[in-house]
Amino acid sequence: MDKKYVVGVDLGGTKIYTALVDLDGNMINEITVKTEAHKGDKAVLEKLISTIDTVLEGIDINEVKAIGVGSPGPLDIKKGLIVYTPNLPFKNFNIVKPIKEKYNIPTYLDNDANAATLGEFMFGAGKGSTNMVYVTVSTGIGGGAIINGSLFRGSTANALEIGHTTVMKGGPRCGCGNTGCAEAVASGTAIMKRGREAVESKVETSLKDYDEVTAKEVFIEAEKGDKVSQDILNDALSYLGITIANIANSFDPDKIVMGGGVSQAGNIVFEKIDYEMERRCLKIIYDNCKIEKAVLGSKAGVLGAAALAILESK
Amino acid sequence: MDKKYVVGVDLGGTKIYTALVDLDGNMINEITVKTEAHKGDKAVLEKLISTIDTVLEGIDINEVKAIGVGSPGPLDIKKGLIVYTPNLPFKNFNIVKPIKEKYNIPTYLDNDANAATLGEFMFGAGKGSTNMVYVTVSTGIGGGAIINGSLFRGSTANALEIGHTTVMKGGPRCGCGNTGCAEAVASGTAIMKRGREAVESKVETSLKDYDEVTAKEVFIEAEKGDKVSQDILNDALSYLGITIANIANSFDPDKIVMGGGVSQAGNIVFEKIDYEMERRCLKIIYDNCKIEKAVLGSKAGVLGAAALAILESK
Repeated sequence: MDKKYVVGVDLGGTKIYTALVDLDGNMINEITVKTEAHKGDKAVLEKLISTIDTVLEGIDINEVKAIGVGSPGPLDIKKGLIVYTPNLPFKNFNIVKPIKEKYNIPTYLDNDANAATLGEFMFGAGKGSTNMVYVTVSTGIGGGAIINGSLFRGSTANALEIGHTTVMKGGPRCGCGNTGCAEAVASGTAIMKRGREAVESKVETSLKDYDEVTAKEVFIEAEKGDKVSQDILNDALSYLGITIANIANSFDPDKIVMGGGVSQAGNIVFEKIDYEMERRCLKIIYDNCKIEKAVLGSKAGVLGAAALAILESK
Repeated sequence: MDKKYVVGVDLGGTKIYTALVDLDGNMINEITVKTEAHKGDKAVLEKLISTIDTVLEGIDINEVKAIGVGSPGPLDIKKGLIVYTPNLPFKNFNIVKPIKEKYNIPTYLDNDANAATLGEFMFGAGKGSTNMVYVTVSTGIGGGAIINGSLFRGSTANALEIGHTTVMKGGPRCGCGNTGCAEAVASGTAIMKRGREAVESKVETSLKDYDEVTAKEVFIEAEKGDKVSQDILNDALSYLGITIANIANSFDPDKIVMGGGVSQAGNIVFEKIDYEMERRCLKIIYDNCKIEKAVLGSKAGVLGAAALAILESK
């Protein structure tokens, strides 16, 4: 029987988003449930399997080619293990085996950044590219790369740790323990921290009108003309531009796809990235490389897991 | 008849180094001649061809599989063109066609950094690796990468422009026009410039005992205990370490091979790189990635051109 579908599972700390997807990336059925991680590994696994059951209702299982699962890492994708992840109850837990055994369908695991990379490459802003880098900028900074049309994982499956490239020697401390990482100076968290530091300082800023400042408020007040917010954004986005320019000079991609909340925060983000890239990239690399906004939004993970299933089962 | 040999040509601004090489990387015949670039494109081409004639003397041409040429860039490798290069008389000059026509053997062109990358990968320090990055640090900083066992060129054949990744926002001006490039703060030229600035300043340093200071003298005097020379090296090598750590976090290679004069200048280079990598790389990437000295020395280019011939004619 013709294999017409795959199942994609976006396993997150707060919710599980599962969909039946055809080979062109169209969602046929979808369901989102709360993860309820506190209930433990078996309960979350059962819940995950129930979402697969739901999207498969009324479908002949013989038409389903493969199942893909995207999860936060670190993972051991060859063994199908979730090694450890702060927001999920799994420790060295084989997530692939029970799914594969239940449905008797090939099942694949990869981390959420790689899944989103594959999703944008196959069904989103990266369609048609050969060498693509996906960069996500939200609370953290992460990414993935397509090289010669295939997902590039690196030797330990940790390639594109963009957020922990150093762009400011002696800069602020990063969550990883190091200093001056891109994530420590250019992520949503970094913008939030600089905003809160301003609020707690003597400087005059309209950020002080808020009960709680996040990156969003810094973008809003910068747009309205608050000088302090503008300075914070200029600094952070300049370092973001340097981070992206370094990746472009290293990977020479034909497309860079920008996802995550900060990338969606306004034209200023893309203007600053373009400004730094034009100055810092080899001209031929700059001229050849398109920067585009990710288009799959909250569906990147689940469609990426579906893309993983399609590509790995080829 | 069994194809037992390839010809490698290392075309440089000062000399042409050509060798007949067997498929295991053993040099059978070799010759080095002066390029004499001032004599113009046709003269240099004739000279290049005469070196091939020389290494083929007494060899049955039917035993030669392919010819590889490594040249400074920018090149158009698909068309076989040397687009332009400061130290050679070629402008949009097809170097591949006349060689191919004369010998009726497949002939391939690639830039010198890629050739050296292939040379170290097939016959040198990179043997046995799957994902390897080659970094050369001499007057400039350049590199190349092997990904999943194949040379990675990027979309415009300019990948691994490591020397022009930004590691010091607002840092010194680079030859490329930008500021804060790795090459402007961590190359042999950068070390030389910092040394000469010290000589011209009021600071006390034994560098003032030399008629002319290059990077070499800074290494010598640092070793002898000159504080100023030590500071210069500490700064430059710290930025070199950051450059390499960023590449490791991006490419997650199993091996990084360090070539070029600065890489050979002493253990302090590798100690500083290791220090920065341990602090700045994801632990699993650091633990997995070996840093090794290039072993082919001045033969990297010619053996790399031979490796190119072997790989491309497969």
